[in-house]
Formats: sequence, C-alpha cells, structure tokens
Amino acid sequence: MKYGYFDDKHREFVITRPDTPTPWINYLGCDEYCALISNTAGGYSFHRDPKDRRITRYRYNNVPVDRPGRYIYLRDQASGDYWSATWQPVLKTQNSKLKIQSYNYECRHGLGYTIIKSKYSGISTQTTYFVPLGENLELWALKVRNDTKKARSLKLFTYLEFCLWHAEMDMTDFQYTLNIASAVNEGNLIFHQTGYAPKSGRFGLAYFGSNKKISGYDCDRETFLGQYHSESNPIAVEKGKSFNSVGSGGNPIASVSLNISLKAGEEKDIIFILGAAETKEEAGDIYKKYLDEKAVYKKLEDLKCYWADYLGRYQANTPDTDVNSMVNIWNQYQCRTTFNWARFASYYESGIGRGMGFRDSNQDTLGVVHVIPDRVKARIKELAQNQFRNGSSYHKFFPLTKTGEKGGYSDDPLWLIMATAAYIKETGDMAFLDEKVKFIDGEAASVYDHMKKAIDFVLSEKGAQGFIKMRFADWNDCLNLGADNEVAESAWVPLFLYMEMREFLTMARFTDRTEDYEKYKEIAAGIKDNFNKKAWDGKWFIRGIDKYGEAVGSAKSKEGGNIDLLPQAWSIMSGVAGTDKATMCMDMVKKHLDTKYGIMLIDPPYTEYDEKLGAVTTFAPGLKENGGIFCHANPWAMIAEAILGRGDIAFKYYKAILPPTKNKMADIHLTEGYIYSQFITGKHNANFGRARNSWLTGSAAWNFVAIAEYILGVRADYNGLVIDPCIPKSWKSFTVKRVFRGATYEISVTNPRGVNKGVKSIVVDGLEVEGNVVPVFKDKRVHKVEVVMDLNRKEQQQQWQTYHSYQSSIL
Amino acid sequence: MKYGYFDDKHREFVITRPDTPTPWINYLGCDEYCALISNTAGGYSFHRDPKDRRITRYRYNNVPVDRPGRYIYLRDQASGDYWSATWQPVLKTQNSKLKIQSYNYECRHGLGYTIIKSKYSGISTQTTYFVPLGENLELWALKVRNDTKKARSLKLFTYLEFCLWHAEMDMTDFQYTLNIASAVNEGNLIFHQTGYAPKSGRFGLAYFGSNKKISGYDCDRETFLGQYHSESNPIAVEKGKSFNSVGSGGNPIASVSLNISLKAGEEKDIIFILGAAETKEEAGDIYKKYLDEKAVYKKLEDLKCYWADYLGRYQANTPDTDVNSMVNIWNQYQCRTTFNWARFASYYESGIGRGMGFRDSNQDTLGVVHVIPDRVKARIKELAQNQFRNGSSYHKFFPLTKTGEKGGYSDDPLWLIMATAAYIKETGDMAFLDEKVKFIDGEAASVYDHMKKAIDFVLSEKGAQGFIKMRFADWNDCLNLGADNEVAESAWVPLFLYMEMREFLTMARFTDRTEDYEKYKEIAAGIKDNFNKKAWDGKWFIRGIDKYGEAVGSAKSKEGGNIDLLPQAWSIMSGVAGTDKATMCMDMVKKHLDTKYGIMLIDPPYTEYDEKLGAVTTFAPGLKENGGIFCHANPWAMIAEAILGRGDIAFKYYKAILPPTKNKMADIHLTEGYIYSQFITGKHNANFGRARNSWLTGSAAWNFVAIAEYILGVRADYNGLVIDPCIPKSWKSFTVKRVFRGATYEISVTNPRGVNKGVKSIVVDGLEVEGNVVPVFKDKRVHKVEVVMDLNRKEQQQQWQTYHSYQSSIL
Repeated sequence: MKYGYFDDKHREFVITRPDTPTPWINYLGCDEYCALISNTAGGYSFHRDPKDRRITRYRYNNVPVDRPGRYIYLRDQASGDYWSATWQPVLKTQNSKLKIQSYNYECRHGLGYTIIKSKYSGISTQTTYFVPLGENLELWALKVRNDTKKARSLKLFTYLEFCLWHAEMDMTDFQYTLNIASAVNEGNLIFHQTGYAPKSGRFGLAYFGSNKKISGYDCDRETFLGQYHSESNPIAVEKGKSFNSVGSGGNPIASVSLNISLKAGEEKDIIFILGAAETKEEAGDIYKKYLDEKAVYKKLEDLKCYWADYLGRYQANTPDTDVNSMVNIWNQYQCRTTFNWARFASYYESGIGRGMGFRDSNQDTLGVVHVIPDRVKARIKELAQNQFRNGSSYHKFFPLTKTGEKGGYSDDPLWLIMATAAYIKETGDMAFLDEKVKFIDGEAASVYDHMKKAIDFVLSEKGAQGFIKMRFADWNDCLNLGADNEVAESAWVPLFLYMEMREFLTMARFTDRTEDYEKYKEIAAGIKDNFNKKAWDGKWFIRGIDKYGEAVGSAKSKEGGNIDLLPQAWSIMSGVAGTDKATMCMDMVKKHLDTKYGIMLIDPPYTEYDEKLGAVTTFAPGLKENGGIFCHANPWAMIAEAILGRGDIAFKYYKAILPPTKNKMADIHLTEGYIYSQFITGKHNANFGRARNSWLTGSAAWNFVAIAEYILGVRADYNGLVIDPCIPKSWKSFTVKRVFRGATYEISVTNPRGVNKGVKSIVVDGLEVEGNVVPVFKDKRVHKVEVVMDLNRKEQQQQWQTYHSYQSSIL
Repeated sequence: MKYGYFDDKHREFVITRPDTPTPWINYLGCDEYCALISNTAGGYSFHRDPKDRRITRYRYNNVPVDRPGRYIYLRDQASGDYWSATWQPVLKTQNSKLKIQSYNYECRHGLGYTIIKSKYSGISTQTTYFVPLGENLELWALKVRNDTKKARSLKLFTYLEFCLWHAEMDMTDFQYTLNIASAVNEGNLIFHQTGYAPKSGRFGLAYFGSNKKISGYDCDRETFLGQYHSESNPIAVEKGKSFNSVGSGGNPIASVSLNISLKAGEEKDIIFILGAAETKEEAGDIYKKYLDEKAVYKKLEDLKCYWADYLGRYQANTPDTDVNSMVNIWNQYQCRTTFNWARFASYYESGIGRGMGFRDSNQDTLGVVHVIPDRVKARIKELAQNQFRNGSSYHKFFPLTKTGEKGGYSDDPLWLIMATAAYIKETGDMAFLDEKVKFIDGEAASVYDHMKKAIDFVLSEKGAQGFIKMRFADWNDCLNLGADNEVAESAWVPLFLYMEMREFLTMARFTDRTEDYEKYKEIAAGIKDNFNKKAWDGKWFIRGIDKYGEAVGSAKSKEGGNIDLLPQAWSIMSGVAGTDKATMCMDMVKKHLDTKYGIMLIDPPYTEYDEKLGAVTTFAPGLKENGGIFCHANPWAMIAEAILGRGDIAFKYYKAILPPTKNKMADIHLTEGYIYSQFITGKHNANFGRARNSWLTGSAAWNFVAIAEYILGVRADYNGLVIDPCIPKSWKSFTVKRVFRGATYEISVTNPRGVNKGVKSIVVDGLEVEGNVVPVFKDKRVHKVEVVMDLNRKEQQQQWQTYHSYQSSIL
C-alpha cells in the first residue's frame, strides 16, 4: 500500500503521499453544483452543465499535470519562504533535500468532501473542501496552526482560475475569449461576470471570497503569476504582495491575500467560498451565511449524515474486507457519481461534447435505484423525453439546454426498458407504466408505450441473418461496421433485445396486456431460436456480421478479434443459450480472454487499422476496446458465471478488477484504488495492468449489480426479494442488510458445506418460506432472514436450469 | 528598445532578452509545411492543415506560457547541471542569482528561419530552425562550442511533443485520444504513426531524428518528464539517462539523447530533423539528404536567396527608417504569411475552427499580388470554387478536406471582385475573366460570371432603407444585428458594393460587355445616391439600421457606438461621398476616434451586453470591436486621408500603429514589434495600448496597400502604374523600386516645396509623360521614373476632385 488505504470507519480513503501515479480525485456535490478535486487540490467546478456553465478552468492532459486547482499559498513573512497547503502547486519537496514524508501530507477523500493536510516549517494546515447540501457553492475550510514555540507572521494567498463560462470556447477560441473577461473586487469578494455564454443564455456570475478581512487581491492571471512564472512560483507570492489587479479581458482569476499572525501553538480557522449566483446581492447574502466557521463545519456534519443514511440502505458483511469496502462505500459512491454525471465530465472527458448518455444514464440507475428510487423515476422520465416517436432515441443529451444528438447506435432505446424494470422491481410501482411522457417529436405516451416503441424500433432494424443491423455501433462504441450499411449486423443486440423483451413481457403480463404479451412472446422466441442457429461458431458465439457478410468475432476471423466477451456473457444473462453452449462459451472466455487483471473484451487485438471494423482498430493492442479489460463488461462475465453456478470463477473475476486489489500495484495500475476505471490495459500491451479513464459511467453500476445481486445474490424482483447467492466455496457465511420497499431485511447467509450456489432454506422472522423469494413487507420494520446454502454440484446444475427455466417461463 | 531591434541588413529582427512580454513568434515554411516558433523555441508544426494534420502539440494560453516547443537540453555530465539552448523551458535564470544578461541570449527572427543563441557555464549554443524550400520538414541545426579551457563532456536531450494528428480531438477528447498513440525508435529516428485521423483520411507518419548517433531515446511523455515534473525539469535530464520508452497510448514524444565531448575551444555541429512522410522508407530517404550539415546550411542559404529575390520586387527608401524596415521587409513578410495561412493558425487561433476565410483570403492577396501573381491567380480560383451558384459563398473553407461553412455574412462574396481586380491590374491578364471555375453546387462559370453573381446576390439582399441587410454580420464579425432579421441593415456593405461595382464596371467596359455595363452602372448610381440621402447623420455617416429600425452609429444612438470608422473611410475609398461630407466625416474620425495609439473602431464603446447588437457588446470597453484600435481598419482611414490629400494626417495614422514604434513601449504593447496585431486596446480601457492577436489576417495587407499604394502612392492600374503620393510635407524625397508586368521601375520622387500631394511632372527614361500613369513596358528592363511633387493646397483639393471624378468617370 504505497499510496493509501481504506479507513472504512470514517468512510474515507486515505492517501498518504501526494505524488500518486495519476491525480486521485473525488467528486464533490450531489445536486447542481459539481466540483472535481484531486488529492493535491487540482480540478474544476461547474454548475449544472460542464460545457455551458463551467466556473473554474482546468487544463486537461497538462504539463505540469493536474493544474490549476483550488490553491492556498502560505508565506513566512520573516523568511520570504512560501509553500502550498496541498503540496501542489509549489511542490516544495521537489528539487530539494526535503523528504516527502516530512511534509506530513495526508489526503482524506470522503463522501462529498476532501481533506488535505500538510506541515512545513512548523506550520500545520488542514483544508476541507466540500459542497454543502442544497447549495451552488463550495467551501474551503482552512485550519492553520503554529506548531513552533515562537510567534509567526504569515501571509496567505488563494488562487483559482475562472473559466470563461463556455468551456468549449474557453479551450479553443482564444482570439475571442481572451477579450471578454471581467473580474473585480468588492469588499471581501471577487466577482467574475462575463457577458458571453452563447449557448446557455446569459448566466449570472461567480464569486469568491473569505470570511476574514482580505489585505489584497488579484483578478488578472498574468499579473498575479508574472511573466514566464507558473502556479509554482507566482510573482505575487514571491514578493509577498497582491497587486490588486482587475480582470478586463485576459484570464480572470480569484486570488485574495490575508495577513495571519499566530502565537506559539495557536490555530486559526479561515473560510473561503466559491459559488455561482444570479446577482451580486444574492451572492452577498449567501456569503454571509458562512461567515462563521461553525456554520461551515455544521454543514460538513450534515453532509456526513446524508451519506451515512444513504449507505445505510445497503450494507454487506463478507469474509473479504476488500469486498466490504467497495460494496458498502466506494462502489455505491461511484454509482451515485455516475448517476449524477455519467461521462459528462471527468479528468478524461473534457465536459464539452458528451453530455449525458441515453445508454449510460439508463444503466447508471442500476447502482442507485435501491437508495433513491424517486430520483431514478424522474431520470427515466427525462430519458424517455429523449426518445423519438418511432422508438429511437438520442444517444446523448444536454439537460440544461434540452438538446441532444443521435448517433446511429443500434442498442440505445432498449436501455430504457432495463432501467424501467429495475425501478419497478425495486418499488413495485407498476402504475409508473401508465405515466405519460412526451416524445421529442410528438405527443405524450405512456412509459409502457415508450418501451414498446423501443422494441418495435429495434425489431424494424432486423438484418438478413436475423440479428440486428449494427449501424454506427452498439454498446461497443468503437466497433463501427458501417453506419449506413444494411449488411452489417450485431449479434449482441438480439441478445439484449431478447433480455429486455423478457422484462417487457413480464410487465405486460403483470398489467394484463394480453395481446402484446402473446405477440411479443412469439417474436422473442424467434429471436432466441435464430440466435442459437446462426450465431454459434463451434466453440462460442460470434459478435456480428461485417459489411461483406463475414462473421466478426469468429475463430475464422483473419484480422483478429476472434472471440468477443459480449455474446458469450449475454447469451447466458439473457437466457438465450442452452446449457451446453453456455458452459462451453464461458469456458472459452476463461481460456482466451481471462488474465490476471481481468477479462479482455476481445482476443487477439487488432494490429492494423481496418476500415470495415472502424475505431476499435485505431487503438494500440490491449487498449480500450481493442483487447483492453473493460471494467464495464467484466461484470457481465461475473453475472454469467454466477448464473451458471460457478461461484469461484465469478468471484475470481470480481476480484481481478476490484480497485482495492490495485493498491499494491498502484505504480502499474496508476488510477485511483477506490474507483473503477473504464478499462485496464490488456496483456498484449507492454503496459499490461495500467488503468485508464477512472470514474467513467457504467463500470460502477454493473459491478455493483454483479456483487450485490448475483454474487451475494440479493436482488429485487417484481414480487419480492430474490435470495440466490453464488459465492466462493471457502466463504462460510456473510450478511446483507438491505432496505426494500420500506422494510429492512437483515439477511444472514451460512454456507456450512462450502458450496458455490444453492439455497437450501430461508427462514424469515423465524418462519421458513418456500423457494428463494422473500416476500414484500409493508410494515417498514426490520425482518430477519436466515439463509442456509447447501447443494451438491449436480444440484447446482439443476438449480441453474431452474433459473433458466424460471426466466423462460415468462415466455 | 528593451527587447530588440531591426537588423535590416540581414533582414532580421534581433531579440536581445528571452523574457519578452508575450512570446514573439515567427512562421517557418512557405508551402505545405508550417512551423510556428517563438523567441524561446515554443510553438507547433502542421502539414497543410492545422486541424487535420497537426504534427506537434501546443498548449495555447498555457501556464507556464508558451509550451511545449522544440527543445534541446544540455547537461554537464561532470556536475549534473543542465540548461536549455533556448532559455525555455529550463528558465535557468529564473529563481537563481544568474543575471539574464549573462545567458548571452539572442534570437534572430529571419525570413523563414529563426536563430537562438545562448551561453551557460562556458558552453555556447546556436540553434537555427528552418523549413527548407519545397520540403515537408523542419531542421534544427545546432552548433555547440566549448568556450572554456578544459575538455567538457555533455549529454544532449531533445524534446518535442507529438499531436495526435487531429488537433481538435487532441485537445478535447482525452478518453479517446490517449489510447491511439504509437511512437517507436528505429536507428537514429523516432516514428510517430497513429491510426486515427478521421477527417483527413489516414496520413502517413511523422519522424524525428539526428544526423549523429543517438545514445538513447524516449517516446513516452510521462516516462521522460516524470511524475509531477514538467519540461523545466524532466527526470530523464535530471538523471542524465534516456529510458528508451515506447509510446503506446498516452502522449507520444520525440526525445533523443547524444553524448558530446568537446575539447577546449572545440565546436560541433548536430542536425535534428522533424518531418512528415507517407512511409518509413520515404522518411529514411529524406533523412539521408540532411546527414551532412553542409547540405543543411546550403538549404538555409537557398532560403535566404528566395526571400532576397521575393523582397527585391518592391523596395522603398524613405526618410523614415521605421517605414523602410516595415515596407521593405516585415510588412511584406507578414503579408506572405497571412496569404499562406490567413487566420487558420496562430498563437491565438487554435487552428481547429477557422480554416481559411473567404473574405480574409481575398484581402490577403492585396499584399502579395505584386510578387506572386500566379499564386494569387490560383488562390482566386480556389476561392471562386467556394462560391454557390446564387453568388453567395462559404465564409470559411478547409482546403485539405474541401469542406466549408457559410455564416450569413452580408459582405463575403464581394471580396472576390477586389482580389480579381487587383490581380488583373497587376498582370493585365484580362483573359482571366473568361476562365471557368465550378460553383460548390453547380457547373463551371467564368470568373466574370462569378463576380456578377456575387453582385447580384448582394443586390438581392437590399433592405428597406436601400442599404444591404446585415444578416449575421458584415466585415465587423461581432456587430450582429440579427441573422434572420429582415429589418436590420448594414450601411457599410453598400459602400463596399459600390466600390466593387466600380471595379466590375471597369472590367466590363474593358471587355466590351456593354449590356452589363449599362445595367450595373445605373444600379451603382442609385446606390450612391441612396447612401448620401439616407446615411448622413449630420456630421458623419451611420453604420446601419438595427432590427427595430433605429440607426446604429448615430449621434443619437443611446447605447454607445455613436460613430463608427467604417462608413466614413469607405465613403471616400468608394467614391460615394461628396467633398464636403467626406472632409467633415474624416474630421469627425479624427476628433472622436483618433488616439495616440491609433484610430478606434467606434466611440464610445458599449458598456453592457445588448442582444440587438450582439457580440460586440460582450467585450470589455476598448477591446476588440468594442472600441479597440483595429489594425485592419486603420489603413482605411489612411487611404481616405490620402485620397483627401491630407498626407500629414494619413502618415500620422500610419505611424500610430506601426510596429517599430511599439518597441519603445513593449511592456505596454506586449506583442511583436515587427508585426501587426489584430487590435490595440482603445483608450477606454486601463490597458490602453496593449495589443492582441498578432499575425492575424487582413492587417498586414491593408497596411501595405496604405503605405505602398496611397502614401508612397505607387499602384498598379489596368493601364499602367499610377504615381500619386500623399506624404508628409516634411519629406523631401523618397524612392520606390518596383517590378510591374516584368519591367523594373526605379521611381524617384522629390518634393521640393514640401507639399502633401500633387504630381507636377513625371519623366520616364528621360521623357516626360502626360498625367500620372506610367505606361506598361514589355521589355522586362529597368526604367527610371523621376517624379516631382508640387501643388498648393487648393490644387491638392482639385487633385482630389480629379481622383474622385476619375473614379466616377467609370460610371
């Protein structure tokens, strides 16, 4: 553990040295205000939309890395020496004899807050950054303490760089944007009010200030930093004097300076505030609320309570502490973050082009629906509004400006069914199906009709082989078989279609839509039948058909990509594959795709650009979709193995990509050891094991589904809570506490004979229940659920067939 | 002269200290390969298109400023101390006691090359950067000399950062682009070959190498620089060892290291090469051509010869050395650069969105047509291909991909006539009018018809007041009166239309297109008449009509912008204004818009955002179009004053924005003292005098027209070379040597009685000619032209009336 460890008691990840292999970040803010912050205080903030309402500027992929940020400089007025409260940007231990350990650095990423500590020349600082609940602002709460035995005179300087609101223009159109800034000081505040925000309409202003009297300020970057200087050595800090500069064109910043005298042992509190408001008056009123530091720390406690309550809805206790840290805290936390922002903004997504994804955001509901079903319901309605009358949908959309873009993705609309089913299973709110939501291009229709249109649209795209035409891409954005091509087909979309039709059919049956039920049941059966006939390659299922009619993802494919994870895992998840093919194809996944760091998406990777396969062939082998280990897709293998009853394999897959297991190899893995990344580099690359694109959409939700619903095996269903664990044989017991439809289920599972799967008995509040579905209680009370696992291998096999036939029974 | 001076003998601008207020840059390469380089070796390179074929990466508006670049590190192997051959990026004199003067820094920006010298710890270096004629590559020719008395052992490291070809993706889509790189070493070369270049088709590769045996290399940025390090302190240089890293994903770079031993006093030559090629074989063949440094320096001499020849086509000798430096060297050099690249790529235009402008590129022909008329002809045809059948045109276009965008600009198509007229006046090539060029959306038509369609299109946009509907904007891109509005009108476009109809009528008459001549003559007369009636505000002409029918640029305008330079200057340039109004409105320009740093575009600036006026009101007062001193528009006042015969005023305006006059106030002006910027901040801003956006299109060409054609007064006309100077009374004489239609005119002007304007006599090769038009000679020989100026004020006035009626006579 070179860089950090989990402090589960405080629900914090503690980073013990500042020079992490990449910036290890946190997302502050659960509502409209979002602040990304790294372990050395780099990052940026925005209000509602990272493109149109970017508040602070960030230089992505920068040299030096991770600049700028939310910086506080401390200057010893006696010596003129200066340093940072967050190591960056002064980097005091770099190029000096000072050991990094002596800086007493510590960063605690908590849930919605980040605390960074440091010590230099006898001065200790602790800066807590957070976004108070319900506010459009962030607070920087600084404690500065004199640990020496003599009085000290310090000067503090803050530094942040404003973005010129429209992040895309800000990073591309300099001849224009460098002439629109206006930043001025009034009292203890700096206001940044720039006239131009072309797409979003004119927004108000940003403000920054301190609760203590400031001694000076700077609003112009070049003045504060000085020619050919950087954040590492601002001329104002070097000289110990703010220049009181005004921003008129150029690069607006907020820097205030304060004189601080500290007696021996004395500690002082200083609060800094950064926010967005409509008017100066509004900003001034909000500012006053946080003049007293007690009010600030009270807000921090409120935030911690919010998260304690949030996580309290699902808590597991397993023999594996890594599992516990993730499933109880960090995986759920990442799920909430991706639910909030999907891939809209990160350290890799620059927040200007992606918006919220239709596919992404539907999936991201899976990781939060057990806690915030009302928000999920609202999100599903918002998503349904991004669907067209013909059933197709935007691929991405921008909630603030209510705009969107199609992209020719063959799978998009089906995800709405998955999210809707998850919401109804969680809540039992079958009436939701009748709620009316408008199409982009037409009148309102019921949620049920939105789903039906989605199915109809995808069915209308059936190809010559009976699969679904690929178009620009399916889930694999980079497998581009031909946007306008009528020959190329995806063999994965029919599996997904079948799976969602199963959900749709269940809902249709529950709501007595008999005509639809009969009609779509027959269609679904045909899809299943066709897939088994046409997609089997001999040892596994193919991935699709290229525009020349050749199989993609076949043992016979000449270019590479001979086996693809998706059709194997989904053939089982969907219930399409028969037992023999299911086992064989997952054995082949294990043989060809499994590595010590997880399951590669394809094997072998492509080595040359191939126009008929598209972007996947532009990546170096082992990277991204070209043989990378996709953390988003790995859970599908875990789920498939859990369905097959192979709990040791499922759990091995789960652990292979589990972030805590990466802390021992952080210099290889690079990204945060508490968060899933988009992918881990595959074995065909010299950088095998290196992760990229942390915090991205999808990975968190699906890993949570895999562990919580399929490995620990507790999942909401229409009629109750299914208990169906598939665990390592070595596990003797585990518990899950889960709120479901208002009641709390305290589930205790024992595994006396060390099986992978099989529920022998379930006792609820002392009474044994039939089968493995625990009933719904309307009493909002606590219920004890005692589960005993025990089946031999053959019985497990039958159990799986039962699962399979349970699902098939819907048809 | 704090930062530099002109060395006209060598045609170089010499920068004497590295810490210029902004990077002072140069453009290398006249053909397909372009390299922007600053005085400390920052900058970037591209091949043909800065968006689709960017070779090296640049971080615009960066902190630290001006990174990365073309860097050479030197490391003393005995001490471990290291520094840069170009001051940046190690910045050895920053944060140290070393005085900047002791670095012996010097940068010589020449024509197509840049030489940077430095000296540190007894080691002198001189690096010459240039793009050889006709090659798609740049050479870095290093001389390193041991000025001490003992042997020295050095290690050299180079550093450049590759762009992932598509510059827009490279700066926005990191989750994608950071997985496509491939950079490897083979022998003495590094190859960067990345599969993805989506818009341009797949391009080959970039290569970098040295003519000397390398001892190591790095292709991966993070490896070479090290965590939390920067270009200032790469870990490889600190440790004195390349890591031989490969780029596979991430950020590809080219760094090679070489061991250099130097005896006392010894000097060595080392060549580095960076280029673009289709294949490794092609790259290898080209590389071999430059193994011998003699071949390299021979290419440098060829380049110097090219420019000596280029500039030899126009040389003036005036009593003002600032004028001579500019008109003979730097203004013409900037004209050629803007002809090549307009505003496609600079340090402010990020090269991704603008492309080549239709308006820009037509104007930019004015500054080069006297030297490279054949290239101008080709450019005009390329421009005409960006016109639609209805006469409208793209606003910008991308030559490589042959794509473009309209923008709703009311003036665009007319600029084609200006360029065509300039070409025909220069060459006499009237047959060009009959050459056929395709429209974007239709069959080919003659150049003449392209011009006629342009006029017809603009005429079809006539508004209710008889001006032309403004649409998104006219020349003033930021005066947005309503793209879809039918009420808003530009009062400037009719002046421009009238001026270009005059040229069109002249060409029609020359080519006996009598019907057109009669038809358009009458229309033009109506435009002139209407303008004088409707646009006069009492003391000056208004700028237009807003969407509520109110005048813009009127004394009565409530929001600001009461007077606008454009309609005043162009009323005279076009010949629309009568004498009294012409004099009065230019007096008002002087009274309201003139400042010590030039003429503001409007006065007073707008202070609040105003949706009916658009982007102009988003700038801080004094910046850009909101009361800035536009270097592009100032020449129009010079030309108008020259036409009015007020040579002292015209020349005062010329000098007010002349770059050399800024070298004494470089800490206020900030941008290069040898190049025009887009604008200088107006007097209503605290940063009055600060220039922004240097090297942009338009300014150079129009300032050259003003000085060469209207102040020095030598201009090509259809029938010969007009001699019509309008100079300061204090000038006793000046000469102009100019090639015109193959013959060389050595023009010597004397001004014995100290007048502003008036040609008393012209003697050509000893024979006096009638009037002030020197005839065309077909003999390609040198001809002596002796001109005597002498007229009193009243005669000057008549002279102007003659000019005016000469122009009117066409009608």
